[in-house]
Amino acid sequence: MREVFQNELHEVQDRLVEIAESVATIMTKASTAFLKSDVATADEAIALAEANENKALALDELVIRILARQSPVARDLRILVSALRMSASLERMGALASHIATIARYRFPGSAVPESLRKTFEEMGALDIELANKVAQLLKNTDVDFARKIQAEDARVDELHRQVFDVVLGDDWKENAMFTVDVTLASRYHERFADHVVDISSKVSYLTTGAWHETEEV
Amino acid sequence: MREVFQNELHEVQDRLVEIAESVATIMTKASTAFLKSDVATADEAIALAEANENKALALDELVIRILARQSPVARDLRILVSALRMSASLERMGALASHIATIARYRFPGSAVPESLRKTFEEMGALDIELANKVAQLLKNTDVDFARKIQAEDARVDELHRQVFDVVLGDDWKENAMFTVDVTLASRYHERFADHVVDISSKVSYLTTGAWHETEEV
Repeated sequence: MREVFQNELHEVQDRLVEIAESVATIMTKASTAFLKSDVATADEAIALAEANENKALALDELVIRILARQSPVARDLRILVSALRMSASLERMGALASHIATIARYRFPGSAVPESLRKTFEEMGALDIELANKVAQLLKNTDVDFARKIQAEDARVDELHRQVFDVVLGDDWKENAMFTVDVTLASRYHERFADHVVDISSKVSYLTTGAWHETEEV
Repeated sequence: MREVFQNELHEVQDRLVEIAESVATIMTKASTAFLKSDVATADEAIALAEANENKALALDELVIRILARQSPVARDLRILVSALRMSASLERMGALASHIATIARYRFPGSAVPESLRKTFEEMGALDIELANKVAQLLKNTDVDFARKIQAEDARVDELHRQVFDVVLGDDWKENAMFTVDVTLASRYHERFADHVVDISSKVSYLTTGAWHETEEV
């Protein structure tokens, strides 16, 4: 029974890794679509995000079946509950990337990115892609030091998010309201994407260090 | 044992209702703060959202303890997993309302709401408050017809969200970039708030109608 359960936990872990890898692909395509006004790539990102949602739902079903069959307690139970939350975060990350791709789609053949913010969004996109790849790696190795490192890395995304507002609200901003709306939302989506990375990394730290012992009187 | 379990499920339900009621209060204060540039009320909304987050976390802990002690299966298990998700949605709704209050705080003593969009935001705020109150009621009565009715009601919020963009991107929009940023984000927060209402209502429908029978081979 214990061996079956361990195999099931590995299956959950493998699927989380797979979903995280697909989220990294979706963000790569979304960022390309946004920066290059590439509609075909935007459509790929949007379609992959839909597939990603279904993968997350299927994973949730698997977790619920394991909960029912194995009636886990203590740490095993917390791993499975955390898996449900990580799956929700990964699903949301795919949706946020898909929103970024949708902005590019709406503005085509124009660009949604004004030149004054191009570098900022290039860095933001690259960071989000890197963070998504690192989350996939973290879900594989569950290394607590790596988890803490990732948690610190969203600070730069937050800084870039604030930079977007500094530019938009500065005296030199001469773009029309459409650009203002697009960069406001795109920046928000990039920032929320990184927030979810932090949430997932915190959950891995928490499960790995057993910092939840005080609540383990279940 | 069954009676203990039923009492525990009622406790979960009562806490969900209590959190939903507090979310309605937070949105009421956030909308007032936003429309009237009322900093004291904005601060109340922000403080209540923090308390709300703690209530949601405490509820999650309770659900995990029940899962560990009772090892529920089938419908009971699904109710508890859904409670975790509804708690996450309610926590997020409080955070979104708090973001709306924060916009008002940043712009004080000025207003974040241009006159051309005042009526739109008044209606959006009123709808979000109404939806939050209805969700609290729904979590009490778990009436499936009521759940379906609520699910349809976010359509008007979506319409108002689109209206905001029509105004901002229209020829008559003469406001500066600060207003454009504020109303873009505020509208997005109002719309996401209503999305979570739909999510919670769908979960109640699903649990009440047993539309998940096909997956009940657990």
